[in-house]
Amino acid sequence: MVEAVCEVERSQAHSRIAELRTRIRSGEFQSHTSGIAEDFVQGNVVILPQKYAKDFAAFCERNPKPCPVLAMGDTGEPMLPSLGQDIDIRTDVPRYRVWRDGKLVSEPTDISALWRDDLVCFVIGCSFSFEWALARQGIVLRHVVEGKNVAMYRTNIPTEAAGAFSGPMVVSMRPLSVSDAARAVEITARYPRVHGAPVHVGDPTVLGISDLQKPDYGDAVVVKPDEVPVFWACGVTPQAAITQAKPDFCITHAPGAMLITDLLNAQLSN
Amino acid sequence: MVEAVCEVERSQAHSRIAELRTRIRSGEFQSHTSGIAEDFVQGNVVILPQKYAKDFAAFCERNPKPCPVLAMGDTGEPMLPSLGQDIDIRTDVPRYRVWRDGKLVSEPTDISALWRDDLVCFVIGCSFSFEWALARQGIVLRHVVEGKNVAMYRTNIPTEAAGAFSGPMVVSMRPLSVSDAARAVEITARYPRVHGAPVHVGDPTVLGISDLQKPDYGDAVVVKPDEVPVFWACGVTPQAAITQAKPDFCITHAPGAMLITDLLNAQLSN
Repeated sequence: MVEAVCEVERSQAHSRIAELRTRIRSGEFQSHTSGIAEDFVQGNVVILPQKYAKDFAAFCERNPKPCPVLAMGDTGEPMLPSLGQDIDIRTDVPRYRVWRDGKLVSEPTDISALWRDDLVCFVIGCSFSFEWALARQGIVLRHVVEGKNVAMYRTNIPTEAAGAFSGPMVVSMRPLSVSDAARAVEITARYPRVHGAPVHVGDPTVLGISDLQKPDYGDAVVVKPDEVPVFWACGVTPQAAITQAKPDFCITHAPGAMLITDLLNAQLSN
Repeated sequence: MVEAVCEVERSQAHSRIAELRTRIRSGEFQSHTSGIAEDFVQGNVVILPQKYAKDFAAFCERNPKPCPVLAMGDTGEPMLPSLGQDIDIRTDVPRYRVWRDGKLVSEPTDISALWRDDLVCFVIGCSFSFEWALARQGIVLRHVVEGKNVAMYRTNIPTEAAGAFSGPMVVSMRPLSVSDAARAVEITARYPRVHGAPVHVGDPTVLGISDLQKPDYGDAVVVKPDEVPVFWACGVTPQAAITQAKPDFCITHAPGAMLITDLLNAQLSN
């Protein structure tokens, strides 16, 4: 009986996600996806011409905290069957960023017209997955409550270079009470495929961040006097590497506007 | 005081491994490396021209149980600094296999003369790492006691294809008592980067293995009446994929003759 109820609930959740994906695909939903994908895995997206793909795969392998690879597409193939039945990377991200020679040139909601036979898609784990795990344990996240995108910062932590790809680690920050911060370390450590445990807790200047109220990506949130800022490695790190590597062509998601997959976050847990 | 003793022991262990590597490098040691590298990480090796590297990286990403990537070298670069200070992939494997068009053409102990500027080296986790974890928990492995290479078999489990790379999963087998088998599942599950928990326990015909006494690679061992065969995904799987993909050139390790790194197995544990 319980199983049958679970089965129905699961099927309803899949329907809701399919509906959300339809709204994204049509261009109706163009916003950040923090807190809206229930317990489904969300992913950062990097699409590169094949000639850069080997070096970028090595960059991810050497920087598993910011760049845990969830899927690597076939060359020229926009469908990602390992992430869901009908996921088309050309349409299923709410907002993209198009880069030429390392410069951001546009932020479309559909890249069908830009697709090429030599493009390779990487999907990288996202902290929105562990936000779900935190919420399930009763840890309330301010940016979710306030309907904001998470705050993200470039740090002074260097990534391990691979070919032309290098640059600073990008982190996401969530303010938490000290006791919630300790629990958050424990909970997120079980999710290495979505950034795992925090890279830093406390003083932002240690990471070279001078003003928490001025994030490099996403929205600022207040850190209250009885809270500490908690920093996790972030899947926007490849975008910093792209500004260094200057590939002649590249497409990413817009920070916070993620690919929503059919996988369940629980499937990524240790 | 205890720390000082540990420090000395650690340094001595590193010296012993450096000495072993010198013997491998000179061509004096050409055998399998099961049970001889203490608690240092060993790795399977696949070296491919750059044109195949992206597809092979995708093959590994899609088949993390047999092909967990520990390191991916820079193109044309034989040194692997993330695995150890002085590791040169051209000389530091006891025995190599050279493949042309998917056919095994030679088994040299040094590939310096074959090195090219377009070669990319992949090092893949190896079950010899979790053998160390099993030994530490008092689980005795017959092939180690008998000084044999582990028994390996091609199965009927298909891998997830990427580009031209496909083919059957290769497994390694260790006979254990039922109670040790249960503990071995628990222990190896903590090491996903070296194949993790077994893929099967018991009846080998389920995997399409008709005769345990005729392994496809390595040495046969007796399975006693009160034991069950326990099967783990094996890093020789890429060699089966290479016979399918038929890259014009490829170098691997010879099954069981692994690259010994400076990393500690404990570093790979969850």
